[in-house]
Amino acid sequence: MNELDNPIQRSDGFGIDNLPYAVFSAHNQQKRIGVRLGTKILDLGFLEESGLIPDTPRSSVFNSPNLNALAELGPVYWLQFRLWLKDFILNPASGLQQKKRWLKALVPLDQITLYLPFQTRGYTDFYASEQHARNVGALYRDPANALLKNWKHLPVAYHGRSSSLVISGTPITRPHGQILMASAGDPAFQPSRKLDFEIEVGFYIGQGNQLGWPIPIETAEQHIFGLVLVNDWSARDIQSFEYQPLGPFLGKNFATSVSPWVVPWAALQPFRQAMPQPDIPVAAYLAQANRSTFNIPLKLTLKTASGYSQTIIKTNFANQYWSMAQQIAHHTINGCNLEIGDLLASGTISGTEPNSWGSLLEISQDGRQPLQLANGENRSFLADGDEVTISAVCQNSDKIVSFGEVKGKILPSLSL
Amino acid sequence: MNELDNPIQRSDGFGIDNLPYAVFSAHNQQKRIGVRLGTKILDLGFLEESGLIPDTPRSSVFNSPNLNALAELGPVYWLQFRLWLKDFILNPASGLQQKKRWLKALVPLDQITLYLPFQTRGYTDFYASEQHARNVGALYRDPANALLKNWKHLPVAYHGRSSSLVISGTPITRPHGQILMASAGDPAFQPSRKLDFEIEVGFYIGQGNQLGWPIPIETAEQHIFGLVLVNDWSARDIQSFEYQPLGPFLGKNFATSVSPWVVPWAALQPFRQAMPQPDIPVAAYLAQANRSTFNIPLKLTLKTASGYSQTIIKTNFANQYWSMAQQIAHHTINGCNLEIGDLLASGTISGTEPNSWGSLLEISQDGRQPLQLANGENRSFLADGDEVTISAVCQNSDKIVSFGEVKGKILPSLSL
Repeated sequence: MNELDNPIQRSDGFGIDNLPYAVFSAHNQQKRIGVRLGTKILDLGFLEESGLIPDTPRSSVFNSPNLNALAELGPVYWLQFRLWLKDFILNPASGLQQKKRWLKALVPLDQITLYLPFQTRGYTDFYASEQHARNVGALYRDPANALLKNWKHLPVAYHGRSSSLVISGTPITRPHGQILMASAGDPAFQPSRKLDFEIEVGFYIGQGNQLGWPIPIETAEQHIFGLVLVNDWSARDIQSFEYQPLGPFLGKNFATSVSPWVVPWAALQPFRQAMPQPDIPVAAYLAQANRSTFNIPLKLTLKTASGYSQTIIKTNFANQYWSMAQQIAHHTINGCNLEIGDLLASGTISGTEPNSWGSLLEISQDGRQPLQLANGENRSFLADGDEVTISAVCQNSDKIVSFGEVKGKILPSLSL
Repeated sequence: MNELDNPIQRSDGFGIDNLPYAVFSAHNQQKRIGVRLGTKILDLGFLEESGLIPDTPRSSVFNSPNLNALAELGPVYWLQFRLWLKDFILNPASGLQQKKRWLKALVPLDQITLYLPFQTRGYTDFYASEQHARNVGALYRDPANALLKNWKHLPVAYHGRSSSLVISGTPITRPHGQILMASAGDPAFQPSRKLDFEIEVGFYIGQGNQLGWPIPIETAEQHIFGLVLVNDWSARDIQSFEYQPLGPFLGKNFATSVSPWVVPWAALQPFRQAMPQPDIPVAAYLAQANRSTFNIPLKLTLKTASGYSQTIIKTNFANQYWSMAQQIAHHTINGCNLEIGDLLASGTISGTEPNSWGSLLEISQDGRQPLQLANGENRSFLADGDEVTISAVCQNSDKIVSFGEVKGKILPSLSL
């Protein structure tokens, strides 16, 4: 019995307990939906074409260029399909034709191209790590008042740019912008000298709300389809000159990278972790009994142009002050409508120790304390040729669920 | 000869010199594209079905639920189609069948429903009126340093929320939010007490750019399909507590209203107006020879629940420091990709005199000097039942081009 026949044995985090969705194409065929099993992807589009998926309420749920159609069917369907899929994988039909189909539906990862999992219209980035907000507040504003007054009253967020969401592996060209070289004087127009990453986790909205009608915090989690890794590339020098008073714009919107595997909400339940009560009382619409998050250990590896590779950050998604349910309740409390495929990201995830801070801005203290790599190189910010990989694996005594990775390599700036 | 036979005679700004596009439906049929002629809309979807439109490169350009398909055909096609359309209107075929078709294609406005003209993924709001930036800076921050250092170096902007763009006429429910009632103390959760409008003009992107590749300022205008009126509803009390450091969020994203008639770029050329050189030198990518804008007189009428109506603001789109070409060049200089259907709005348009300031925040000085209406009512901010209408008509010695209006009425807040 080979591994394809028995994916439940896999210990790489892509076994029967995970089944993350992705959009892929293979052999010059159209984009479709698959779920990862070990080093293969199970082609759900092919299964759908073959009539093997029972009770799909529409004709093309899995032969679709994004997960929006599947999301549209709602959380009850997501769970029912997941049950069917587990049974289908664990108890493959035994006849020869079924066997052939099963093998044909499993495509090796090295034969596929992966795409953004959702058609995303709204991309919102939060700012939910207290340590990150304190670190950045101290560097950009006032160390004595690093955390602004609103921060513990509401989950601060801004609208990001959805057109420049890119799939993991997409190269990132160093952006140009207006940069203040000294606090006095005029800005210079030049390539960013403070190009940075941000370790984030994002969640995709699988069910929206009508404009005007808030989502109650009690049912907010039902709107979440699944989670991905996000690298919110940031040009700190462009951002710091432009961001007052309306927030980040060109310092962020040149690219935001997303991992291809959407880990289903159901797969993350074994990794629930209680969150402490907020430090101060919050408004009723944000009050959540038994707040919880997921224990998602994250790491970031930097590979320099020399080929040297080092894991420089280990942090955890649980290092957040606000829960995902609170973020959804806040986003919609004024009637703002979320839509299927919207991506809500955590903001940079920073733990208490410097080696758990989720950006070079924080680690190098805006360049004043360059990070020393073990091979003798150092980094205040990213250099051309650097490749940044964020990965995450959830593990407890009997389950392993991997997010895979989100990766991007820095290309030199254009000649403008 | 009635007015339908001779739309060129119309002096309401919807004659042959305008021909603004809209998305509409009538008689329970599907959404399609039309152009306005006087008090009728010419059903381009019907003309397309009837085979009367020559040389459409695709099958359903006008039988489409938005203008994205037409925009996709590019600026050369937009102009060619406009020439054909003018000729078709001015020289209707004379045979009986043609006459019947022509009459059937003209639908009275009171028989149609209008929709958002484009499928918009990216909505960006600028902040390009110096007077507005000075007014707001003085109220929110420091009167002595009302204009931040970046303001004359680059067109400040932020990403708005596209899911809550609504068509003119959609009621606006007063949003709830966290509001600081005094500078000390905790915020209260309650309906906004400072609900406001913002007079803006928006332009729709008809051609995008590839991620990574900026749009040169010299060709930036070619990317613009047409212009609309925008009311960027704002809850000032929600905004002022939340907006630091990442910019406006719930104070804006509950609704942004858009007028249905997209005035084509070509129709606005007679209203070109030179812009003075910027006050300080700008980066090369923003340097534009012969800067120009359009002379678009705007007015805002407030109708209160009592039925009393008064025009309280007259201002002009020409009151902008940055040109549309500069805004496009800036938005993309870091490689950010614009897409067909993106809406870029001017930000509040304020002239030098208080009766030309484009928001109640400015006019009432954040409520300290309520606006006195001629019927004895006064307004610091909007009251429930108020209806706000922004309209614009461009006129010179021989042409009139109207934008129509963008309208919205304030409904009381929900009971949350």
